[in-house]
Amino acid sequence: MLNTALLGAGRIAGVHATAISTHPGSRLVAVADINAEAAGKLAAQYGAEARSVDAILADPSINAVLIATSTDTHSDLIERAVAAGKAVLCEKPVDLSLARAQACLAKVGGAPVMIGFNRRFDPNFAGLKAALDAGEIGKAELLSITSFDPAPPPVAYIKVSGGIFRDMMIHDFDMANFLMGAAPVAVLATGSSIVDPAIGAAGDVDTAVVTLTYADGRIAVIKNSRRAVYGYDQRVELLGSEGLLQAGNMLESTLVKSTTGGVTSAKPTYFFLERYMPAYRAEWAAFVGALHADQSVPVTLEDGVAALAMAEAATLSLAKGEPVRLADLG
Amino acid sequence: MLNTALLGAGRIAGVHATAISTHPGSRLVAVADINAEAAGKLAAQYGAEARSVDAILADPSINAVLIATSTDTHSDLIERAVAAGKAVLCEKPVDLSLARAQACLAKVGGAPVMIGFNRRFDPNFAGLKAALDAGEIGKAELLSITSFDPAPPPVAYIKVSGGIFRDMMIHDFDMANFLMGAAPVAVLATGSSIVDPAIGAAGDVDTAVVTLTYADGRIAVIKNSRRAVYGYDQRVELLGSEGLLQAGNMLESTLVKSTTGGVTSAKPTYFFLERYMPAYRAEWAAFVGALHADQSVPVTLEDGVAALAMAEAATLSLAKGEPVRLADLG
Amino acid sequence: MLNTALLGAGRIAGVHATAISTHPGSRLVAVADINAEAAGKLAAQYGAEARSVDAILADPSINAVLIATSTDTHSDLIERAVAAGKAVLCEKPVDLSLARAQACLAKVGGAPVMIGFNRRFDPNFAGLKAALDAGEIGKAELLSITSFDPAPPPVAYIKVSGGIFRDMMIHDFDMANFLMGAAPVAVLATGSSIVDPAIGAAGDVDTAVVTLTYADGRIAVIKNSRRAVYGYDQRVELLGSEGLLQAGNMLESTLVKSTTGGVTSAKPTYFFLERYMPAYRAEWAAFVGALHADQSVPVTLEDGVAALAMAEAATLSLAKGEPVRLADLG
Amino acid sequence: MLNTALLGAGRIAGVHATAISTHPGSRLVAVADINAEAAGKLAAQYGAEARSVDAILADPSINAVLIATSTDTHSDLIERAVAAGKAVLCEKPVDLSLARAQACLAKVGGAPVMIGFNRRFDPNFAGLKAALDAGEIGKAELLSITSFDPAPPPVAYIKVSGGIFRDMMIHDFDMANFLMGAAPVAVLATGSSIVDPAIGAAGDVDTAVVTLTYADGRIAVIKNSRRAVYGYDQRVELLGSEGLLQAGNMLESTLVKSTTGGVTSAKPTYFFLERYMPAYRAEWAAFVGALHADQSVPVTLEDGVAALAMAEAATLSLAKGEPVRLADLG
Repeated sequence: MLNTALLGAGRIAGVHATAISTHPGSRLVAVADINAEAAGKLAAQYGAEARSVDAILADPSINAVLIATSTDTHSDLIERAVAAGKAVLCEKPVDLSLARAQACLAKVGGAPVMIGFNRRFDPNFAGLKAALDAGEIGKAELLSITSFDPAPPPVAYIKVSGGIFRDMMIHDFDMANFLMGAAPVAVLATGSSIVDPAIGAAGDVDTAVVTLTYADGRIAVIKNSRRAVYGYDQRVELLGSEGLLQAGNMLESTLVKSTTGGVTSAKPTYFFLERYMPAYRAEWAAFVGALHADQSVPVTLEDGVAALAMAEAATLSLAKGEPVRLADLG
Repeated sequence: MLNTALLGAGRIAGVHATAISTHPGSRLVAVADINAEAAGKLAAQYGAEARSVDAILADPSINAVLIATSTDTHSDLIERAVAAGKAVLCEKPVDLSLARAQACLAKVGGAPVMIGFNRRFDPNFAGLKAALDAGEIGKAELLSITSFDPAPPPVAYIKVSGGIFRDMMIHDFDMANFLMGAAPVAVLATGSSIVDPAIGAAGDVDTAVVTLTYADGRIAVIKNSRRAVYGYDQRVELLGSEGLLQAGNMLESTLVKSTTGGVTSAKPTYFFLERYMPAYRAEWAAFVGALHADQSVPVTLEDGVAALAMAEAATLSLAKGEPVRLADLG
Repeated sequence: MLNTALLGAGRIAGVHATAISTHPGSRLVAVADINAEAAGKLAAQYGAEARSVDAILADPSINAVLIATSTDTHSDLIERAVAAGKAVLCEKPVDLSLARAQACLAKVGGAPVMIGFNRRFDPNFAGLKAALDAGEIGKAELLSITSFDPAPPPVAYIKVSGGIFRDMMIHDFDMANFLMGAAPVAVLATGSSIVDPAIGAAGDVDTAVVTLTYADGRIAVIKNSRRAVYGYDQRVELLGSEGLLQAGNMLESTLVKSTTGGVTSAKPTYFFLERYMPAYRAEWAAFVGALHADQSVPVTLEDGVAALAMAEAATLSLAKGEPVRLADLG
Repeated sequence: MLNTALLGAGRIAGVHATAISTHPGSRLVAVADINAEAAGKLAAQYGAEARSVDAILADPSINAVLIATSTDTHSDLIERAVAAGKAVLCEKPVDLSLARAQACLAKVGGAPVMIGFNRRFDPNFAGLKAALDAGEIGKAELLSITSFDPAPPPVAYIKVSGGIFRDMMIHDFDMANFLMGAAPVAVLATGSSIVDPAIGAAGDVDTAVVTLTYADGRIAVIKNSRRAVYGYDQRVELLGSEGLLQAGNMLESTLVKSTTGGVTSAKPTYFFLERYMPAYRAEWAAFVGALHADQSVPVTLEDGVAALAMAEAATLSLAKGEPVRLADLG
């Protein structure tokens, strides 16, 4: 039984609390948050205890911590938790600063730290990866990732987000790494604030296209938009030497209506909680399973740093208006 | 080169005129119609001549006639054309009277007379048949045919149509015979005039369901409605011991629109001319091909009589409220 | 908080145990089963207690019982639970005997007894019903229900099942009642044992088509097969005066693969547990919600008896080879 | 009646010959080709005459010429035909040399010269444009064009093709111009010869991604591959402020097969002749219609030069590894 503490008591922490509680191999024992009321409420809901981070890390009966606090605390908490001998599952991104994330990685080394790239566990994307690995479309050549949010976040959030590449496209960078099995050589970003000029005024873009080129000639394209009014649009397609794989959206239902106005079907599920709920559960199960089997966790801190490096390269590429080689990032 | 005369100059005759003219192995040489103006106009459009039926049948240079006149003339014209040594492609149904159709069959025997069950040549249904024959779903068990018109015809037409089973469902009876490769043992019809009570007042129904049972335990269900406001709905599905085959509608385009209101795609093509234009061309090509190869035509007068017998059985079943065995039709 | 006892500890009881436990308004307190070990195991898994039926019914702190025992015990348990003042959710069918079910209904009258026609709570079918009620396709005219199991049950089960109409199609009879909002006038069944002759030897059929006719001219068709090798095939379509509604299968994933061999997508989810898991949860939530709101339960014992009457009529119709009027059932 | 001569007698000329002959407002009167036998054969098939280019241009009864010769002859033939007072429909690209095409444009000015970007007339893409113009998705923001051929051409062809951007992606550049209604500011190309190294050895790429940026912040992405083994993959999607429009592939049929192996549907139609046959007919009809109505042709020589400029920019961008501004092309 994996006695688990949850650091953070926000919305995504709630999702993880459910996953931890309903998994037969883990138990939620403690919740910590700077907002004591939130921590208390979440803990009560799952029969756990609200405690301080210090108390949690000092408690030898706690085997694992799930870090779902604000991004700027991730690196510190990872380091402290590893030092305290806990296994760690930390929400993405590792940090907004690549240098800080690299330092964290250098410090914790091979400790069991998993980064929460939950989309790898989405059954559709996981199925695509499995089909690719099984050779069903031969060798991968051209990858396309479409990743649109239903609506932009408040500009106040944008300002502290680290920018679209670190905040939003980082999931897609990791998806590219997951599917391509290698880091790209160069990153080439374009973007604009066509959805909301206020996002541009805040120094960010809301619509972006990034092209990744690989040493062996493979290419990947990632498209992001902060607004797709019809819902969360999350699709991947991969052209290979012997075929094409596509993983599409989950729909709200299978209902189809045909009238004089056309044939109407359901929209994609609204946002990430709806779409990726099964992925969050599968992610937790994979973490618990790896620990129980004494295997390395399926998404490592290295993976988190790799995706962050791509976000940094994309940010730089957009600013300079030219491609940036990952090797030149330093 | 098959010198062909067209008997009839109405809408469906126009479709056949195009097929005859554009096929490299046939030529439209003459058109006959009781409406001389219509015959003249259609003939002129295709570089053919307007002539009388007598003149056409007496002309030894004419090899084939396509009969697209009103149903009550079909049997007579088939018999006369065969007597004159012409190959015949006749629109469905052979006749409204089963006895008359049977007499026609008895008279013309094995002469090359093809009945215009064009749906056998629809690429989707033909593909379904080919997949079935190739064993792709094992043995057929349960067939479903959905066949809805976009809008009911005028009640005046209904009154002379012979009823929904002889006028509309006869296509589906032939489709069942085509796919099942055997005639059913019994026919069981239900129906109502829920679309338009005036159709009921005219002694017909506009919504009907017919179940066919076969000697070996297979079952088929045919659904007809005179009104599907979203367009011509023509689907077939066949459950077999090793799978399911479905042939669906052709859509007006592949355009899909996703908005806050849902995901909207195109409607089915509006009616039979849009849906079955390729089928009419393929039907004519099959007729010409069979004659050139000195093979029997792919849809025979026997097939036409068989479908008509099922229509008669369905009419009787609806009237009596009980199943009718084809063997009891006499 | 609804203190709930579960009668039965089989597979479907396990599904209900999860629903009861995870609903914030209910709690699983006791499990009874003739197999004491099974009851103990299931109870332990959810922190409940294994108890006898007598003890459960005698315990005034228990508010509700969920009956998931073998069918032959349903009527008795409903009557006893109602007599003990419990609210009841009972798995379908009420009974294999229509007379017994009618007697049960007469005895318990308006007590809160809900019958487990879970498909009414499937989001796809519920959405279809909502769209119909909202007038989105005008007035209903022609309903089609396709309901195929992935594989036939053992013949030993078939023998005690009450036959395909009481065991399998009863769900579809209730779906027709749910969507049409009225009982049919007549039932007309055909069927054969084409999937497995042993099922025929056991006095049952494995493939069946039933046509229902309604007083106002509406028609419904239900198709059942005990074997669709590609998975559980559960579809409903309803033609109305202003359009068509279709609710289709849930697929295992959205993955699509295009190769020289064609374009391949995922199969339907395998069987009822995969397809209807959300429906079971929604069913329980509806039961709890109705009790808390002091409203009548959304699927009543009358509904259970109505579906059973249709199953009896279908059984009779198949045997006699002619339509059976519900009014003539006695 | 538009008396039309066809310059060229190759495969695509044959497609145009059919369109010219079957249109009620045009007639094919002459065919010219350096291969006299090919010209004679094609002419005979459509009741036209094989003549020299000189004879055609000198014949005042000929109103229009359709240029379907090799690309290196296009500019000269356009200039000569315009000088001879003929209306012109010329296959794309105008020329492999941007300078030569610009000179041609300068010379012929506003004469009725249409460039054969047939995809604008594909019903799916035309429908997408119409929906966009009707405001159905608000303002355009992010365009994606997928354009994969089923198999690469021979390397010998690659060598004289002008490269993937002038030969293949030029269609997509025009599609972007058609849909976006403006030229981009900058072009940014990546590419590799991952499909066939011999294509790389010939100085070209077979897989390419181009990003177009627009003055107002809109972005477009075009993906090309010379090989999609499942068939011709031609899709467009456009994200707007109020929704998404997608135009997909035409499929070989609507047949769907469900077995234990999955659910298999038909592949896209194989290549451009199958997919764009209706587009070629509609293109010709638009040309004839514009001339008859004395309106300007719907795709102009300027359009042809604009697309060619983008191809030149892309070629340069790929070579330099950085974005190229169209304004810097000179």
